Amino acid sequence: MSAWAEWFTAQRAEREEAGLQRTLRPRAADEQVIDLASNDYLGLSAHPEVRRAAADAALTWGAGSAASRLVTGTTTLHAELERELAEFTGHEAALVLSTGYHANLSAVTALAGKDALIVSDAHVHASLIDAARLSRASIEVVAHNDVAAVRSALASSGKRAIVLTESVFSVLGDAAPLAELAGACADHDALLLVDEAHGLGVRGAGGRGLVHQLGLARHPNVVVTATLSKSLGAMGGAVLGCPDLVDHLINRARPFIFDTALAPPAAAGALAALRQLRSDPALPRRVHHRGERLAARLRVPGSAGAVLSVPMPAPQVAVAAQAEALAEGVRVGCFRPPSVPDDVSRLRITTQAGPDEQRWNEAVEILARVIEEHRSQQ
Amino acid sequence: MSAWAEWFTAQRAEREEAGLQRTLRPRAADEQVIDLASNDYLGLSAHPEVRRAAADAALTWGAGSAASRLVTGTTTLHAELERELAEFTGHEAALVLSTGYHANLSAVTALAGKDALIVSDAHVHASLIDAARLSRASIEVVAHNDVAAVRSALASSGKRAIVLTESVFSVLGDAAPLAELAGACADHDALLLVDEAHGLGVRGAGGRGLVHQLGLARHPNVVVTATLSKSLGAMGGAVLGCPDLVDHLINRARPFIFDTALAPPAAAGALAALRQLRSDPALPRRVHHRGERLAARLRVPGSAGAVLSVPMPAPQVAVAAQAEALAEGVRVGCFRPPSVPDDVSRLRITTQAGPDEQRWNEAVEILARVIEEHRSQQ
Ligand SMILES: Cc1ncc(COP(=O)(O)O)c(C=O)c1O
Ligand SMILES: Cc1ncc(COP(=O)(O)O)c(C=O)c1O
Repeated sequence: MSAWAEWFTAQRAEREEAGLQRTLRPRAADEQVIDLASNDYLGLSAHPEVRRAAADAALTWGAGSAASRLVTGTTTLHAELERELAEFTGHEAALVLSTGYHANLSAVTALAGKDALIVSDAHVHASLIDAARLSRASIEVVAHNDVAAVRSALASSGKRAIVLTESVFSVLGDAAPLAELAGACADHDALLLVDEAHGLGVRGAGGRGLVHQLGLARHPNVVVTATLSKSLGAMGGAVLGCPDLVDHLINRARPFIFDTALAPPAAAGALAALRQLRSDPALPRRVHHRGERLAARLRVPGSAGAVLSVPMPAPQVAVAAQAEALAEGVRVGCFRPPSVPDDVSRLRITTQAGPDEQRWNEAVEILARVIEEHRSQQ
Repeated sequence: MSAWAEWFTAQRAEREEAGLQRTLRPRAADEQVIDLASNDYLGLSAHPEVRRAAADAALTWGAGSAASRLVTGTTTLHAELERELAEFTGHEAALVLSTGYHANLSAVTALAGKDALIVSDAHVHASLIDAARLSRASIEVVAHNDVAAVRSALASSGKRAIVLTESVFSVLGDAAPLAELAGACADHDALLLVDEAHGLGVRGAGGRGLVHQLGLARHPNVVVTATLSKSLGAMGGAVLGCPDLVDHLINRARPFIFDTALAPPAAAGALAALRQLRSDPALPRRVHHRGERLAARLRVPGSAGAVLSVPMPAPQVAVAAQAEALAEGVRVGCFRPPSVPDDVSRLRITTQAGPDEQRWNEAVEILARVIEEHRSQQ
């Protein structure tokens, strides 16, 4: 056996020992479960108008965009999506990328370099952590939502500084103190980068996001990243800010420059979803109301967005509860160490506007029963 | 003006000074130019079957896959695409990712860590350079296609080592000495990672890639990455290798684990393109024959793939030639320092199977005339 084959085997044995071995389970198009594990909060990925827009774009433009954005991959569709995304979220300009991951890699690496300081909330998403590493900036990780720690990190550094946070956090579903963080950044001439992956479509008037809700959309010290793959039901990412920022990224962000442009069907799907959201402000409200009722029923604190985090007494109990819910027709997520920021195993349930009232209520009852049964176990 | 606004302005002034300021130019769906700047070598992004497959997937599955691969984003479509990609390229297994960039980031970071050595060809793509940086491995950059330098780097290191190369290089269009590199890796228990972005669909029997052509597809020391965004006309990336490799990536590759799954229209488009390629082996042959004639007509050496690199006497001359070709209806790429590995400005022309014989011949004549006119200028 080669050294590499041995290494793979040893690594796998370690994972199995720790109970962390994971495998992929393909789902069929016609599966009947109620999926409350996905991030399709508004049900827009399957909305008839969104499907049709993506299909039409495939017929009109083709399956891919054939080149990077700067070469020949920018279509009028990309430009239209950028205009409407910026307008909707209250920013001056937007840049669309092929994934939300790319949006974070691009924004952080193009803004921070060896000479910069990155102050990162302890709970930020893997894509922001990778982005910070890739940037080669100095990195200071501060305790979750600790504004005083951010202020002190900024005060003690003479460097160009960027603070990384999310508007609504992806695993725990809590919100960041954005106004306070923006204030800290303004005081220290730093930039606050807010990842709205789980805020867009869910928070703010008509789903414009938490940054818009707090009046921070054109704050000179605030830059926003977002994904088109969650509330907007498609695929892709975006950076939102001033035209100078976008110009800078076009010229400097390697994961933007050296990557094939977002495929036209995804761009068209996201654009149709955005228009759907604009024309139906009841969508984010429904997520909110359902979330409140679900949290009360499960006896957990409400969510700042659509992610409800339900602590479970032990990793195996969380897994068992997830399996039982699925057997009854409801899929939820399950996060265990080391994939949780605080060592507590939990179910991750997303509140969704998609299912009709009856299916939603059925799902709530199933979850309430299954979770109640498992909660007392050790 | 804030410190950040000043910084953006200063950065932009530097770019303008150096003549490197770039902007996006959206193209319309009905533009009439012959696009020889794109990487859609086989014309499959716009093939009727490929468009239809992408459109059907949008209608059947929705615009996006709504979650990461491990949560609920893996559909039977992803599984089918992985099976057929592996089979076509002669590998045991494949893993599909959301971009080629993600494929390189994932493979390199999951295989190499702080304890590893990465030996990287000086001409590799930005995504491999970023991947190496992100991995935190020690990095040794060796001269382009220098097998002796690779051997000596491997011999002097006691570490787990990975060698990074491309099968056909993206800017110069030359090939790597893969058999010799694989031999060096076998001798030193190292892994050779070959990026087939520009080899798949173009090299090897029926477009199976250069790794397949050289009989290296199941070589125990060879791992392959590829994109679905070039010859396969869609969007996405793939890692090809043994099942242990794929299992390792599923469990360890952060840009795979924490990223929304490839959108169904892109997966279906790539799958339809793959089937089209399998059923029509004349496609890669046409690229090859056209490339030979074009190279002869332009009096440059032939390409190892579909990328023809035409050196020009100066950056401004390259830009002028590109503009004149576009004015006559043919779009080509233009690479100037610092985007070229060797300080030589050049036109990058891709040979394509898409245009019919008459349009192709027209394009060749336009390019021959424009390039001849500009070549003697300084
Ligand atoms: C907070 C956050 N940021 C970024 C991303 C990456 O977005 P994408 O999946 O579109 O790459 C995700 C999820 O995948 C996320 O949860
Ligand atoms: C050699 C090479 N590898 C990887 C990539 C990245 O692939 P993608 O555009 O699908 O992200 C590209 C081009 O974009 C490339 O030329």
